[in-house]
Amino acid sequence: MRMYDIIVNKRDGKALSQEEIRFWIDGYTKGEIPDYQTAALLMAICLQGMTSQETAWLTMAMAASGETADLSSIPGVKVDKHSTGGVGDKTTLVVGPIAAACGVPVAKMSGRGLGHTGGTVDKLEAIPGFRTVLEPQEFLEIVKQEGIALIGQTGNLAPADKKIYALRDVTGTVESIPLIAASIMSKKLAAGADAIVLDVKTGSGAFMKTMEDAIALAREMVAIGVHSGRETVALITDMDLPLGNAIGNSLEVREAIETLQGKGPQDFTQLCLVLAANMLFVAQRGTMEQCMEQASQALYSGTALTKFKAMVQAQGGRPEPELLALSPCKKTVCAQRQGYITKMETRQCGIASVVLGAGRAKKEDPVDYGAGILLHVKPGDRVEAGQPLATLYAAGEHLLKQGAQLLEEAIEIGGQPQPPMPLIYARITKDGVERLG
Amino acid sequence: MRMYDIIVNKRDGKALSQEEIRFWIDGYTKGEIPDYQTAALLMAICLQGMTSQETAWLTMAMAASGETADLSSIPGVKVDKHSTGGVGDKTTLVVGPIAAACGVPVAKMSGRGLGHTGGTVDKLEAIPGFRTVLEPQEFLEIVKQEGIALIGQTGNLAPADKKIYALRDVTGTVESIPLIAASIMSKKLAAGADAIVLDVKTGSGAFMKTMEDAIALAREMVAIGVHSGRETVALITDMDLPLGNAIGNSLEVREAIETLQGKGPQDFTQLCLVLAANMLFVAQRGTMEQCMEQASQALYSGTALTKFKAMVQAQGGRPEPELLALSPCKKTVCAQRQGYITKMETRQCGIASVVLGAGRAKKEDPVDYGAGILLHVKPGDRVEAGQPLATLYAAGEHLLKQGAQLLEEAIEIGGQPQPPMPLIYARITKDGVERLG
Repeated sequence: MRMYDIIVNKRDGKALSQEEIRFWIDGYTKGEIPDYQTAALLMAICLQGMTSQETAWLTMAMAASGETADLSSIPGVKVDKHSTGGVGDKTTLVVGPIAAACGVPVAKMSGRGLGHTGGTVDKLEAIPGFRTVLEPQEFLEIVKQEGIALIGQTGNLAPADKKIYALRDVTGTVESIPLIAASIMSKKLAAGADAIVLDVKTGSGAFMKTMEDAIALAREMVAIGVHSGRETVALITDMDLPLGNAIGNSLEVREAIETLQGKGPQDFTQLCLVLAANMLFVAQRGTMEQCMEQASQALYSGTALTKFKAMVQAQGGRPEPELLALSPCKKTVCAQRQGYITKMETRQCGIASVVLGAGRAKKEDPVDYGAGILLHVKPGDRVEAGQPLATLYAAGEHLLKQGAQLLEEAIEIGGQPQPPMPLIYARITKDGVERLG
Repeated sequence: MRMYDIIVNKRDGKALSQEEIRFWIDGYTKGEIPDYQTAALLMAICLQGMTSQETAWLTMAMAASGETADLSSIPGVKVDKHSTGGVGDKTTLVVGPIAAACGVPVAKMSGRGLGHTGGTVDKLEAIPGFRTVLEPQEFLEIVKQEGIALIGQTGNLAPADKKIYALRDVTGTVESIPLIAASIMSKKLAAGADAIVLDVKTGSGAFMKTMEDAIALAREMVAIGVHSGRETVALITDMDLPLGNAIGNSLEVREAIETLQGKGPQDFTQLCLVLAANMLFVAQRGTMEQCMEQASQALYSGTALTKFKAMVQAQGGRPEPELLALSPCKKTVCAQRQGYITKMETRQCGIASVVLGAGRAKKEDPVDYGAGILLHVKPGDRVEAGQPLATLYAAGEHLLKQGAQLLEEAIEIGGQPQPPMPLIYARITKDGVERLG
């Protein structure tokens, strides 16, 4: 078998065989196939596509390229949850405890923030003392004891994905639905869960700008789940406005705790319940209605909050919200005119939070856990001139000034209220697409 | 400007600007742009294509990437000729002297053979003493004095093309008409001729297997000529059977000399006259009819042969055909049955000649100038069982045996004669396509 022929087959629009895909991934991971041949093949895949079967084979080959987490010592159906990333997306901090409170074990690895989107590991590290790096044995022990542990990515999981992603990033081959699906799902498969719930964001703050792309990506990932024997459900959810009111690590953990106390923003609470219910569903805890009921019960009875606190303590952290320090400088952005909030340019809100210090422009940048944005209004709200729109937190006045300017530009005030947008547009299972929006 | 954006533009099907193409070619030639980015762009070009304007800009950027030959000290319109390569294609040895005999200076660089096709430089080196490497000054002096000099590629002409070709060869991006056109024409532009005649081969022994591809390539190259101010004409000619009767270096030089003596095979003689006439045409020596008349006159009066001999002597060679040694072992392949020659698998005839020692499978392989095939029949001929079809020459019996087997498989004898195929299918100028076949 020759890499050359594999490239030519894909260039000519043919489907690759499982052997061809394995030959490529193994050879590339080992460094036997050079970057330039992989770059040519990636571009051919971008332009010629891949069948669902090819995408599944690619995912499995990437998942098998390094270590895989072994969760078999934990009894029950282990469920993972993945979000394609957004602004203000702190759902893992709420849905994990809800699922755990309902008896579904959550042994989850999360990522760090990059660019305009945040990452769960950064939010967890805003909690004083919280350890996101655990030895595998301790990780498994906490899940067995508390029902949930959340850590950063550990071990050499899916090294082929890391290497291919780095190459895609410099060769204009990121924008390919089969390659995006394989990248996400290879890490999920290697992380060892039995079932997966995917939160595919769409809108101005998301990677998938259009509904069609989001649905195509979701279908592709669900198909990979089917091919690899992991029950998988995907939700298409809105990222045309920030999720909840808090953007920034300490602020978002505070909001997550408020939500677990039953006092969270309506949009964020609703999304958490639906995601958690789907986690229960893929863990075969009943019909969707029954699962929604169980999730609500766990949230509003406080058992989910108890799980959250137990996890934080087991991982060395202190769960009291008042310990989540905010940055020393703050500034309020006010409405320049009266009217209705008609739009929040979500990506720009995310960039404003990065400028304030809450995120990273480059991988190696430090994060200021106390920095961020607390929104006081959301699209649809009526505002008077001079009314506070948001409070910004940062380490210095110059950062506040830059962040405030970006945020002001991101919020549009118009004369007429806009109809509210749905929060959840569709649910994709192996049986098809169910439109909800 | 970033290479990343250039790749994305082409991936998305946009036309690249001249600045983008120059940025790529300059950066890649200097080693500032890595192979993997160029590989991704080449695949995007393969699949998304290029406009004629983009292809011309690419060609000019590649031609300008290194040294360019300066032929300005030679008076008159300098005409180059290029063949896309075939089996038994020794036309340069005949058309160069014809053009020179008609007063059109020929200062031509040629290539070596690779794979199933031969190269003019190998054929010239079969002539005892012939020097294919000349200092630029001597090269120009011989052209001024004798009207013609033929040498190997010299200097650092179009280094971007060399580097890109080597990458295309291992990334499945050879089969792209804009890239093939740019590769050929960049060398022609850098070689300094004022006008160009292209012989685009089509058929089983050619790189372009179909007429449509051959015409598309020819149009692309003629368009590059227009964009770069070089009068360019292309002929689409047959390579569904070997050209002439001789395949192999010494054998082909002997056939070229016989042709210059007016005793060559009909097909080969005809093609040489038409190509030479087109060279005169682009040098503005009259109408096509007048140019055909001049070319025939030069061939049949012996003035072209005189030019050939003068060139050989000026370049250190001895022009007597009897000095062109043939390999010591020979074998005759005979017809197994009576009937008509219905087909000659031309590529396979070429491979048989390589096996005999006349060509190279890899760049660094040595060539046996005396090895090759002399065909005694051509498609359409009636043969009796046992009648000799070809004589094979090689350095050893085992090579002869292998070569004979390949050649026997390549020649098909059927019960019914096939209608003869045209030799020249079309002529492409800046004014369009003229069908001739």
